[in-house]
Amino acid sequence: MNAPTPVLPAFVPPRRVLMGPGPSDVHPRVLAAMAQATIGHLDPAFIGLMDDIKRLLQQTFRTSNELTMPVSGPGSTGMEACFANLLEPDDTIIVCENGVFGGRMRAMSERLGAKVVTVSDPWGRAVDPNKVEDALKANPEAKVLAFVQAETSTGALSDAKTLAALAQRYGVLSLVDAVTSLGGSPLEMDAWGIDAIYSGTQKCLSCPPGLSPVSFSPRAVEKLRSRKVPVRSWFMDFSLVTAYWGGGAKRAYHHTAPINALYGLHESLVLLHEEGLEHSWARHRQHHLALARGLEALGLSYLVPADERLPQLNAVRLPEGLQEDVLRGRLLGEYDLEIGAGLGEFAGKIWRIGLMGQSCSTRHVELCLEALGKVLQR
Amino acid sequence: MNAPTPVLPAFVPPRRVLMGPGPSDVHPRVLAAMAQATIGHLDPAFIGLMDDIKRLLQQTFRTSNELTMPVSGPGSTGMEACFANLLEPDDTIIVCENGVFGGRMRAMSERLGAKVVTVSDPWGRAVDPNKVEDALKANPEAKVLAFVQAETSTGALSDAKTLAALAQRYGVLSLVDAVTSLGGSPLEMDAWGIDAIYSGTQKCLSCPPGLSPVSFSPRAVEKLRSRKVPVRSWFMDFSLVTAYWGGGAKRAYHHTAPINALYGLHESLVLLHEEGLEHSWARHRQHHLALARGLEALGLSYLVPADERLPQLNAVRLPEGLQEDVLRGRLLGEYDLEIGAGLGEFAGKIWRIGLMGQSCSTRHVELCLEALGKVLQR
Repeated sequence: MNAPTPVLPAFVPPRRVLMGPGPSDVHPRVLAAMAQATIGHLDPAFIGLMDDIKRLLQQTFRTSNELTMPVSGPGSTGMEACFANLLEPDDTIIVCENGVFGGRMRAMSERLGAKVVTVSDPWGRAVDPNKVEDALKANPEAKVLAFVQAETSTGALSDAKTLAALAQRYGVLSLVDAVTSLGGSPLEMDAWGIDAIYSGTQKCLSCPPGLSPVSFSPRAVEKLRSRKVPVRSWFMDFSLVTAYWGGGAKRAYHHTAPINALYGLHESLVLLHEEGLEHSWARHRQHHLALARGLEALGLSYLVPADERLPQLNAVRLPEGLQEDVLRGRLLGEYDLEIGAGLGEFAGKIWRIGLMGQSCSTRHVELCLEALGKVLQR
Repeated sequence: MNAPTPVLPAFVPPRRVLMGPGPSDVHPRVLAAMAQATIGHLDPAFIGLMDDIKRLLQQTFRTSNELTMPVSGPGSTGMEACFANLLEPDDTIIVCENGVFGGRMRAMSERLGAKVVTVSDPWGRAVDPNKVEDALKANPEAKVLAFVQAETSTGALSDAKTLAALAQRYGVLSLVDAVTSLGGSPLEMDAWGIDAIYSGTQKCLSCPPGLSPVSFSPRAVEKLRSRKVPVRSWFMDFSLVTAYWGGGAKRAYHHTAPINALYGLHESLVLLHEEGLEHSWARHRQHHLALARGLEALGLSYLVPADERLPQLNAVRLPEGLQEDVLRGRLLGEYDLEIGAGLGEFAGKIWRIGLMGQSCSTRHVELCLEALGKVLQR
């Protein structure tokens, strides 16, 4: 197997500082965990690891939900899986759209054959609970209310507690995108009465991308159990996946889990809980405030009003006439620093600076401000 | 971030020898590649890696298909993605079922709303081309013929060349499961006229599970382009995914690719092509023949007739009255050796011994025979 002559060079990635919208910097302990030898997905030792991951995810979502697991795919897989499991054809869903990911919620729901009622807010603003309540009143047949807690495309943080409470009051299930919030912003799945949630690993958990933690409340599981038509996707059907991820020593094979990625997720969750979840939330806020002072001193203004800002994603408007892709290229070339461009209607108009997980530290804030100062002045 | 007191122990996997139905042993170079620092999914260096992976996958499938890429999920994701992209509601598909994975093809097709014509062969036998031709004649409205080249549940190898030629002759698209064959058995996508194919990384590519290489011929792409209804899954819709994986320097964000897993896939493909694809095919056959001699000397008989056997998956019938789970537990506990149990109707009746990728060597054959000899005699 060890042929003496390499026919192709190995890939050696450059060393970057990741301050875009994710992935964020990955701790060396997580990388080392992922490099451990692969074992089987039904190995008793691996079953033990799955139990540990499940418990750590429950602690991170602040839930006791039995159906809590990482979906074997990036955030978009977990996202679509949640919609696919909760929605049946012709179900009405209220989708709050205040950025790219709200739009993706709508697109996924439509493809699944649901009737979508859209509550629109301007990109760069939080979801307006009053509009949501109006939509709930006007659509009593609605089954699900879906919204993004942390809009990665704009850096707006919506009030998940209030929105989930509205869903409870009107008897619909709440479905929350917590891709960029999990680990970085306060989130209390059970205390707030959230029914379904999904996240990603490459944001504030600081794990490589490729897994999507999800959790379903007993109410959401009941909706899944009482479906009239099966979930259209075999791969995403939680009633099948849970035969593997569900409790107990007897696990049934569904698909082959991404073993080494799960080693990494475990270690990243251990790191998070070593620090303490609430400490992590506070750290994200603290460094965000420092970064915001520095960005404003550089003459860059935030897209989002101060009281609706997501600490871990800082979207700032660019000065007129700036060739932003050239400047981002210089940040990457001269400082090995990655920041994010605008998406959709904000392409070319904003930068998105991430302070997520391991990329949220004094060192990151200072490097970013120094590098931005340099490329903006020349 | 580096809190001094660990609150939870790190996970340290046991050292196993993986001779089940996958995952197989992963080369240390692949593990080391995966432990390199994460970079962004739109980093120019990463775009270069994507191009290299695409080219290596084309060489491995033996195709020049432009739509060739790893789907961001385990084999079952790539599998369902192929069905979801090719099938529209009420399309007729002929599915060959001679094991678990043919059954999964049927289940996925039904969930997608297709009309399924099943061609059944006994578990443990190859697909019978005569039955397939009868089905093609009897169902002129059929759009797709789907079959498993290498049935991992039984160890039967079907004649993909003949079956793909039948599909061509009757004007239907061929869709081939090459999860366990890719890298281990002869496979010529273009020369055989295969239209759509999917595989997994954790079998003969000897990479950790979590990615699913796929390829679509121009005919399959044309079917995708002329769909009347969109693919029901947003995540799996190749017309969206290819905006990211397609050629050119301008890649559009679709989902966040599993960066570190792709480092690993690249290195595993480099290893495969260092050895040479045809050498790898020959190596799988050579060690299979040695293992077969040894297993038969131990009194274990193959499930599959000799001329239909898949070298990399050796399914043998168990002696009556054997507590097979106890014996597999001893193999794991005393030898750190993992072999596979039977699935479905063969649960408790067969063992499945893998010789895949890095797990296909003289050392593996000898260890397996020695360990089996010991636990069977006591």
